[in-house]
Amino acid sequence: MKYCSSCGSLVARRKPAGDSRERWICDVCNTTHYQNPNIVVGCVPQQDGKILLCKRAIEPRYGFWTVPAGFLELGESIAEGAARETMEEACARVKVGHLFASVDVVDAGQVHLFFTGELIGGHAVGEETLETAMYSEAEIPWDDIAFRSGTFALRKYFEDAGRNNGVHIHTVRRNRQSTD
Amino acid sequence: MKYCSSCGSLVARRKPAGDSRERWICDVCNTTHYQNPNIVVGCVPQQDGKILLCKRAIEPRYGFWTVPAGFLELGESIAEGAARETMEEACARVKVGHLFASVDVVDAGQVHLFFTGELIGGHAVGEETLETAMYSEAEIPWDDIAFRSGTFALRKYFEDAGRNNGVHIHTVRRNRQSTD
Repeated sequence: MKYCSSCGSLVARRKPAGDSRERWICDVCNTTHYQNPNIVVGCVPQQDGKILLCKRAIEPRYGFWTVPAGFLELGESIAEGAARETMEEACARVKVGHLFASVDVVDAGQVHLFFTGELIGGHAVGEETLETAMYSEAEIPWDDIAFRSGTFALRKYFEDAGRNNGVHIHTVRRNRQSTD
Repeated sequence: MKYCSSCGSLVARRKPAGDSRERWICDVCNTTHYQNPNIVVGCVPQQDGKILLCKRAIEPRYGFWTVPAGFLELGESIAEGAARETMEEACARVKVGHLFASVDVVDAGQVHLFFTGELIGGHAVGEETLETAMYSEAEIPWDDIAFRSGTFALRKYFEDAGRNNGVHIHTVRRNRQSTD
């Protein structure tokens, strides 16, 4: 950030009064521009004991497999976002279930929230997808999963075996991982 | 948003190629400025069967009671954010427990995530707080809780009675509510 998005003046980096962190501040129109983590919402759509994965047609991780997931948009709930991403990436309708995993991808400034889901009907490639496929647990291409958050979510999904055991929380940082 | 925060030029509102939504776009430096929901993290700190609430010293809802909560910052996990907010607002250390409630505050562009917690030691007023107090379930000032998300979280907290029953999900919109 270099310019104020409200008035176009140059911004400065410093702590506002009463704040403990530096922010981008515009001294011309007195606006503080906060920057905060984004939410990624995803879903593990299940049907007849298999789950739906998508092979990515975009970077990062082109050609790797992922659960349907993407950035939450303004105006939708997290469950609506998970369903929308599943439709966009895999042309698939889901009945969204319970929230079962939350991964802090700290260095990317993201929190990834994963729901269970029941796939209703079929699936097909969306614009950002090369291929969609149904996998049993034994068939999951673990070495070709796009992101560590997705690997964590899939492992916990199968460990839960359909039960709601609460949310499994995990933190991913560039050079280390921690789980509780 | 009116100006590009990268180069200071005027931005335009339209759908980027391959996108389904309008975004703020800078045609001078080719930057798309996405706007997405923010995360609020909170905690219900418990000690000896009572929970800690804070009376707000800031707007909105000055003088109303809230569980310690605030915006997640870049560089921290959601559990770390909940602990930090509890320290800032109530000068209280907590051992963060499990995630038990998620409220989509859709019209505000926020998702509120609430953890259980164990209060370690005492509490005192932080900068944004007029008063801190420990309440039993029977003593909760239900009519003076600051936000609907907090009311929902507190109700589910007491319904759970210490058990991890998974995450209770709720959506708040300006003129209607829905729960699953």
